[in-house]
Amino acid sequence: MFRAAILIRIRRSRASCRSVTLQSINMKKASIVTIGNEILAGKTVDTNAAHLAIELHNIGIPVVSTYTIADEIKAILRALNLAEADADVIIATGGLGPTDDDLTRQAFAEFLGVELRLQKDLLEDIRERFARRNLEMPENNKIQAYIPVGAKALKNIGTAPGIMAEHKGKLFVALPGVPMEMSRMFESILPELKEFAGSQAVVVRRLKCFGAGESTIAEMIGDSMQRGRNPLINCTASEGIITLHIIASAKEQNEALKMAEKDEKFLRDILRELVYGIGEQTLAEVVGEKLAQKNKTLTLAESCTGGWLGKLITDVPGSSKYFTRGWITYSNEAKIRELGIPADLIEKNGAVSEQVAAAMARCARRKAGTDFAIGITGIAGPTGGTEQKPVGLVYISIDSDDGCETKRCLFISKRPFVRLRAAQTALNMLRLKLNI
Amino acid sequence: MFRAAILIRIRRSRASCRSVTLQSINMKKASIVTIGNEILAGKTVDTNAAHLAIELHNIGIPVVSTYTIADEIKAILRALNLAEADADVIIATGGLGPTDDDLTRQAFAEFLGVELRLQKDLLEDIRERFARRNLEMPENNKIQAYIPVGAKALKNIGTAPGIMAEHKGKLFVALPGVPMEMSRMFESILPELKEFAGSQAVVVRRLKCFGAGESTIAEMIGDSMQRGRNPLINCTASEGIITLHIIASAKEQNEALKMAEKDEKFLRDILRELVYGIGEQTLAEVVGEKLAQKNKTLTLAESCTGGWLGKLITDVPGSSKYFTRGWITYSNEAKIRELGIPADLIEKNGAVSEQVAAAMARCARRKAGTDFAIGITGIAGPTGGTEQKPVGLVYISIDSDDGCETKRCLFISKRPFVRLRAAQTALNMLRLKLNI
Repeated sequence: MFRAAILIRIRRSRASCRSVTLQSINMKKASIVTIGNEILAGKTVDTNAAHLAIELHNIGIPVVSTYTIADEIKAILRALNLAEADADVIIATGGLGPTDDDLTRQAFAEFLGVELRLQKDLLEDIRERFARRNLEMPENNKIQAYIPVGAKALKNIGTAPGIMAEHKGKLFVALPGVPMEMSRMFESILPELKEFAGSQAVVVRRLKCFGAGESTIAEMIGDSMQRGRNPLINCTASEGIITLHIIASAKEQNEALKMAEKDEKFLRDILRELVYGIGEQTLAEVVGEKLAQKNKTLTLAESCTGGWLGKLITDVPGSSKYFTRGWITYSNEAKIRELGIPADLIEKNGAVSEQVAAAMARCARRKAGTDFAIGITGIAGPTGGTEQKPVGLVYISIDSDDGCETKRCLFISKRPFVRLRAAQTALNMLRLKLNI
Repeated sequence: MFRAAILIRIRRSRASCRSVTLQSINMKKASIVTIGNEILAGKTVDTNAAHLAIELHNIGIPVVSTYTIADEIKAILRALNLAEADADVIIATGGLGPTDDDLTRQAFAEFLGVELRLQKDLLEDIRERFARRNLEMPENNKIQAYIPVGAKALKNIGTAPGIMAEHKGKLFVALPGVPMEMSRMFESILPELKEFAGSQAVVVRRLKCFGAGESTIAEMIGDSMQRGRNPLINCTASEGIITLHIIASAKEQNEALKMAEKDEKFLRDILRELVYGIGEQTLAEVVGEKLAQKNKTLTLAESCTGGWLGKLITDVPGSSKYFTRGWITYSNEAKIRELGIPADLIEKNGAVSEQVAAAMARCARRKAGTDFAIGITGIAGPTGGTEQKPVGLVYISIDSDDGCETKRCLFISKRPFVRLRAAQTALNMLRLKLNI
């Protein structure tokens, strides 16, 4: 079956969904201070700020400003002062390491107007951490056991303890800069932050969508993305995946949960098949779950995606349950010899054609003896396009006992996007097939 | 041949290379103002700031601060004032769209103390852009043709023109938030920025390294990473690839070039085989170039990487010249049936073994008739590890006319990192083989 052509324009847009922030008058606000020369120099992209912003948002503490500054006491003090003027919760990241240019501890002490004091238990912890690896603690690391007087030390999976202090009714936190350590330590202070934010219960649901752009989805759900609405509905886009965040606030957890569930149903009714999953699920995870549930197996014959679809499928732990093999048949000769596609089929229709995509799926399925097989052939670019068959033209086939379904796609974009969208679209086609 | 085991610990470190900033007394400095609720809410990671920081660094204008703020005139004015106090070049991104919450134009006019005035040629440009797609310009977009009096409009590939103005001896620039539009517009003002920065010529060379961690490389090159040195040598790490930036400043272009070349030679002499390329080159590009030059071909048999290596190889345009096919043999049965590996070889040694990796490479090479073949088998985790064969154990074989070389690797990390490092290490092994 040959489906209608679909035309997908891929834009790298920062925000075509309407921008919304979660704010009400009594709501506590947060400001983030990112400390580190390497961030300032562009050597490291600051993913911590975005991570914290989302997490804080989810507990009802919107971030209102972010400051990125150098590892210098003066600069840190200035940023803490600016952040204090903006917000109730001030979270700094970075500068807690053992070297001379890690100055967050000193700056925090100076800002709070107290001394740094050695905490012997922390020093023991750090020493032990080294001992476990049969190493002696370098003298440098001793500084990490110093905490401003009156502040609370936060345990770390690395060596650097964090700092938390209340000061003039505001909450000041210093977290390490290493993303994994930062996110774990942040998680450990969530109860305190929630308490500080007030008694409101916040429930967050995420709906993952594929198959339409941000603006289309925003249009479909219309007014429900209004600022100030409760539940608040937010929309983010990353690599073709659109995520809708439903953030419900209420006095009681149960009430917030009910509100979030009601909106989830409301959105699902509108978006229907576009919603493929929840939370952090990937398309490959959802497809894999369905295959495993139904005890079905899958194989692949990839041309223009060159292994990317196999990579996405095997990203999922346990994928060996439903995926045992695949072919990367990049050349015509490989399609003929490894899959058994008739040479004249390619000659007659061209390698990028409905017929060859279908034959790739059929032959791969026969060879692997699976329930499903995906065949992908296309022109990823930058060269190789013609007027009839432009760069971005991709045929995707799924073969199964129900026959072979082929989709013609035109992804108007550059090579990496054409390839990724082709692999994602194939997964999405299989997902819809498995839904039936 | 069985090489010595290598043990690689993968850390997600923000900066274990010494942090350095390029600064001298007469140097102009920059501050970045990122405008947008979606950045503040964590919905979009601010990659613009990092991109600008590197680009500005490269022309000798270090970034000293970054402010991220909401789409509100008051917040933008405050940030512009703070940035003005920090720096000579102030670059804002975002808030130039056509909707009500795009307020950068208005804030710039207010900051500069002038009116916004309609520029008819810009309006024509925007109208034409819509006309080319057979669309009428929405009334909303008219606002994008307004520019503060006395400021210069910067042409955009999208609809939103940028703004550049000198004010009290400082340079103020507003760029769009969409990364591609931002970077293109920034490129267009490079000549003005260079002139503004002074007459110094800056030459930047980048050396890409693989096979050792940041700290090892930092130790190897020692003092040459000192702050304030000229050429300045910087080190960044991303997904296992270490990049050394050599930034040479001099009065004359020729002199800067000579200095950069001298340091490049110096670093290459120390790091030798660790340096795999220059500029933005990937391992797969370098390997591909060498294969194409020598008129050699490559095939793959992937188990734990599940197509990732094929993906990396076919990321490179023109890879069809040396890569025609590959096998993803995820199960034992697939290894036996598709590649022809003897069942008792797997039974005796286990699928994750030197013998099976070598057999995968040998069989794939024979089937594809290529000059080189890579076989990869390993335990990506999170489960499937034993005491003898832990998660992260990967065998990589390269078969060629010279025989079969197998490497045992232990990547102590999580599933995605184990898989990526395995694919990268395979490419690196082939690179070293092709060097001979």
